[in-house]
Amino acid sequence: MSATVLFKPYDLSVEVPEGENLLRAAVAAGVHINASCGGQGVCGKCRVLLESGTVDCPPLALLSRDEWELGQRLACQCQVAADVVVRIPPESLLDRRTITRRRAGLALLPSPIDIAALKAQGLYHPAFQKKFLKLPPASLSDNQCDLSRLENGLSRQAGLHNLTVDFLLVRKLARIMREQNFEVTATLDFAQRRSRNPRLVNIEPGDTRERHFALAVDIGTTTVWVQLLDLTKGEIVGHAADYNGQLSYGDDVITRIVYSQKGDGLQTLQKAVVATINKIIADLLKRHKLPVEEISHLTVAANTTMTHLLYRIDPRHIRLAPYTPTACHVPPIRARHLGLDLPEHVFIYNVSSVSSYVGGDIVAGALASGIYKEPKLTLYIDIGTNGEIVIGNQEWLACAACSAGPAFEGGGIRYGMRASQGAVEEVSINPENCEPMLLTIGMVKPKGICGSGLINLLAALMEAGIVLPNGKFRDDLNTPRIRESENGREYVLAWEGETQSGEDLTLSEVDIDNLMRAKGAMFAGYLTLLDSVGLKLGDIEQVILAGAFGSFINMENAIAIGLMPDLPRDRYQFVGNGSLSGATLLAFSRDLLEEERRVADMMTNFELSETPGYMDHYIASLFLPHTEADYFPTVTERLRWVRGY
Amino acid sequence: MSATVLFKPYDLSVEVPEGENLLRAAVAAGVHINASCGGQGVCGKCRVLLESGTVDCPPLALLSRDEWELGQRLACQCQVAADVVVRIPPESLLDRRTITRRRAGLALLPSPIDIAALKAQGLYHPAFQKKFLKLPPASLSDNQCDLSRLENGLSRQAGLHNLTVDFLLVRKLARIMREQNFEVTATLDFAQRRSRNPRLVNIEPGDTRERHFALAVDIGTTTVWVQLLDLTKGEIVGHAADYNGQLSYGDDVITRIVYSQKGDGLQTLQKAVVATINKIIADLLKRHKLPVEEISHLTVAANTTMTHLLYRIDPRHIRLAPYTPTACHVPPIRARHLGLDLPEHVFIYNVSSVSSYVGGDIVAGALASGIYKEPKLTLYIDIGTNGEIVIGNQEWLACAACSAGPAFEGGGIRYGMRASQGAVEEVSINPENCEPMLLTIGMVKPKGICGSGLINLLAALMEAGIVLPNGKFRDDLNTPRIRESENGREYVLAWEGETQSGEDLTLSEVDIDNLMRAKGAMFAGYLTLLDSVGLKLGDIEQVILAGAFGSFINMENAIAIGLMPDLPRDRYQFVGNGSLSGATLLAFSRDLLEEERRVADMMTNFELSETPGYMDHYIASLFLPHTEADYFPTVTERLRWVRGY
Repeated sequence: MSATVLFKPYDLSVEVPEGENLLRAAVAAGVHINASCGGQGVCGKCRVLLESGTVDCPPLALLSRDEWELGQRLACQCQVAADVVVRIPPESLLDRRTITRRRAGLALLPSPIDIAALKAQGLYHPAFQKKFLKLPPASLSDNQCDLSRLENGLSRQAGLHNLTVDFLLVRKLARIMREQNFEVTATLDFAQRRSRNPRLVNIEPGDTRERHFALAVDIGTTTVWVQLLDLTKGEIVGHAADYNGQLSYGDDVITRIVYSQKGDGLQTLQKAVVATINKIIADLLKRHKLPVEEISHLTVAANTTMTHLLYRIDPRHIRLAPYTPTACHVPPIRARHLGLDLPEHVFIYNVSSVSSYVGGDIVAGALASGIYKEPKLTLYIDIGTNGEIVIGNQEWLACAACSAGPAFEGGGIRYGMRASQGAVEEVSINPENCEPMLLTIGMVKPKGICGSGLINLLAALMEAGIVLPNGKFRDDLNTPRIRESENGREYVLAWEGETQSGEDLTLSEVDIDNLMRAKGAMFAGYLTLLDSVGLKLGDIEQVILAGAFGSFINMENAIAIGLMPDLPRDRYQFVGNGSLSGATLLAFSRDLLEEERRVADMMTNFELSETPGYMDHYIASLFLPHTEADYFPTVTERLRWVRGY
Repeated sequence: MSATVLFKPYDLSVEVPEGENLLRAAVAAGVHINASCGGQGVCGKCRVLLESGTVDCPPLALLSRDEWELGQRLACQCQVAADVVVRIPPESLLDRRTITRRRAGLALLPSPIDIAALKAQGLYHPAFQKKFLKLPPASLSDNQCDLSRLENGLSRQAGLHNLTVDFLLVRKLARIMREQNFEVTATLDFAQRRSRNPRLVNIEPGDTRERHFALAVDIGTTTVWVQLLDLTKGEIVGHAADYNGQLSYGDDVITRIVYSQKGDGLQTLQKAVVATINKIIADLLKRHKLPVEEISHLTVAANTTMTHLLYRIDPRHIRLAPYTPTACHVPPIRARHLGLDLPEHVFIYNVSSVSSYVGGDIVAGALASGIYKEPKLTLYIDIGTNGEIVIGNQEWLACAACSAGPAFEGGGIRYGMRASQGAVEEVSINPENCEPMLLTIGMVKPKGICGSGLINLLAALMEAGIVLPNGKFRDDLNTPRIRESENGREYVLAWEGETQSGEDLTLSEVDIDNLMRAKGAMFAGYLTLLDSVGLKLGDIEQVILAGAFGSFINMENAIAIGLMPDLPRDRYQFVGNGSLSGATLLAFSRDLLEEERRVADMMTNFELSETPGYMDHYIASLFLPHTEADYFPTVTERLRWVRGY
């Protein structure tokens, strides 16, 4: 027996076998429902409203009795029992429109290395190059084989010897050589780091040197970015992004790894991200009217789990002690082998990872920001679903993943959400009456609070003296905004009549505790890495902030809550999407491509939980901004001033 | 509408659409019919007997009126019009039983290089080697990625650095390393001639060094041979052979190339030969109880057309002036990519070709016989469907394909046939009454004459004085054995009552003319190559005869008819299947594998038809044994003696 599921507000329906899981039905219908926990029923994000019909579901299941009776259900807990109509509530929708949003007023400082700088330094030298050859036509007195004719031409006319040859081009060689009387353009790959010999990649009739493109891809756990690169001009032609299709199977790397262990979960996840990349590339090429045949290669930067999933390498040991990835350096492989809709000559070059939780995205960022060749002591911070940090200079690099968790992406916070339409991002609070002023993304009714909004809210609560240094609300304030709840006390940011969901929008002491643990893990990470080399916070000459999050953050507030060190503000730089920049620079520079493995190997990984001193630093960081006031001189000074004590 | 075709004597039937070609119906039914011309209707080999039913067929079509009225048809000319019963006559059947037949009494002299010699010279050193490693197990204090652990182990325990890694092994790496507590055996490929860096090919749990095998394959136009090699012991474990499945689409390389240009002909031919190789390998592994996973690689030697077809490279230019192959050096490629049923880690290494008609089979033979490193001036002869020759020594090698045609495989000779059951192979003739004595393969009623039989018959007719030096029958002999026919005079070797087919078995002057043109093309080839370097026949210090044909030939008779030069008999050696031996030696010796391309490049190819002097030599060779009696001193002497003049 089968049943029909109709999803509102999309009006998309799907026929499924009776007993099918409702979340799976949504995936089948192409309907996106947030699901942070991979279907384990613990995150409570996949809430839907049952408008009609019947589902089988354990009673309550993470919901209050009121919610249950209103028809709310967790999609992952429901089996379809008959035809149903299901509404996806606003907080479960992914808002694709806001993904490429740029926030006005926050200038993105240029990365320490950019393409102009690359050119100025003589490093603009793509690993893939085209050579035009006028070969002598075949005749009875010279009837050597076509491939030898081509190799001899490359040797005589371009000084290239001892090539390795991609077999697949041999199949079209005879036809292409004769199409324009033995005038051809050969594409060569000089990125064969291990062999030093160029690889003959592709052959085209006539002179095509002016048409040569590459793609740089950043695979984030949440978002996939692709940049289209013109290798002839050394320009970024355009970029595009979309949510990682794996989001339907879990929000973070751990839930994805768990999902990959079920049945054909690994294949499903691999196909999901490949479908996302294919879609973005197709859109990008269409928008720029570019034939896919003109792409010569693909560079990819991703965290270690995303890399494993892309290549369909079982990631299970990333999650199991002692946390070993299978491969940090994945050999180049034909893009088609992974299911990418690209010509058969296209290979993928992957940025090396360092460890299970310091991946190619961080190595790419270290390359893009140039810290591996700067004399300055630099702290590189990438805050995403987790937080990774690198400290060092041209002589040494130390790195670590901080188990900050997804708090700064809204995870683990009752009304936390991604930075999309309706998310509270700016907050100020009147210290007299505790009343807030809010600005949301898209200037619509508030729906939740995004990561940068949480930092701003917490800083505002601190400044207004509503939250104490221990993260608790003052209990002597006479305001309805602060009240008791099952999660301890909470602050009401918006009343039910003001919100999209019709519920009060709050931040509780449990939420604040989660934020403090997240920022504490980061800060303890900085101190632990510095300790390991005998240095102090004040020795840091430069802080580079990477990631989409870094682009939107209010630096003063991030310092105020103790997430960022209290250093002179001119030492801070934003690098934007360091991972994507790194992938792009690799496509533009053979030297960087050859250097990336060396940089990865240069990065000493610290497992913080195994490093002496980390736990002490962590406990000491669970305070606003920190138990050690000396670490935050300007914050301490300002709080004293605004509070008048 | 569909129709049923029943094939006798097999009793195999097949349902085909009305209008289907009868030869295609046979292929669909799995019935093998000889078809030399690829279905063009010119060779007349695919003769069948229509026992009942109706076919559409142009009248007569290469048949006599009597044959037509007896129900004979050429299968390639018939379209099935309704249900039919068709009988395959004996001369159209392929006899698989006799393919591996060894002829008693003709000792096969050992090849100048054999495995024992290889070992004695310190050249026994397979390019694929296994290394056993005890790696330190992963722990929290050492949790580098699995691939780095393996690479470090190979570096520290085996002194191997800068490996390239086959991506596919990465997918199973984590599992295999943990199966026996990080004790593993790695397979490495040292045959990366261009890069000099070993390639990491495979990984197995525990110590598997004692189990390591390879396959050597010789793809002949007619027959495919496979040898199973033990790389640990340096032994040939076994061999097997079968007819090349492409035989159903034409007997020689030209008809195959023609077929490859029709529709999906190229795919069909590629699949046919791959199916043959798969079948032989499966049989061989089953017979020796060997799991296919223990095979590490495959070496292949084949003529240029067979190489193109195996790799699905369009061979059209091999047949079109100026006769350029697409690739003489095909890069290594994963066997699975070609459809071979082998593990994913198995790559194919192909022996280089020299030109369109001097292929990897000849280069392999030159390697196996060691002529490229001998000071002796050597003539290497391989007679198969065509004849290829190499002359030279360690300093230079010249080679050519002689357009001898398939006469010595029975092609172009009315009653010519392959060396199988019923073929006349030994003949003597009583000069008094011209009566013959025949021995056939399998000692059965004669069906036709095989290649070595044709040489013996012609020599016997010469010795008996029945055939004159100009290739014509004497017209003054009083015997019913010699009579007029539409093909000039002919000699009746067996009367209708004595033969399998119930027809007289004859050799006509037209047949003799074909044989003379074939042997003349070979002999003119020797002289032309010698001319090109200013040498003479007498300078040849060694003659190496390769190919199955070379193994069965009666050398005295081959010299007598002028096919082989009249040199002291102790200068002759048989190398057997030089192509297969070469492929085997490459699997056993990294040095030879590295040398094979150099040897191919060292071989200067002569297009005989374009070489001055060739035509004069050819015309002068159209005589028995030759117009220049001085070239054949012992033959001249013997003929004078037996004939008494």
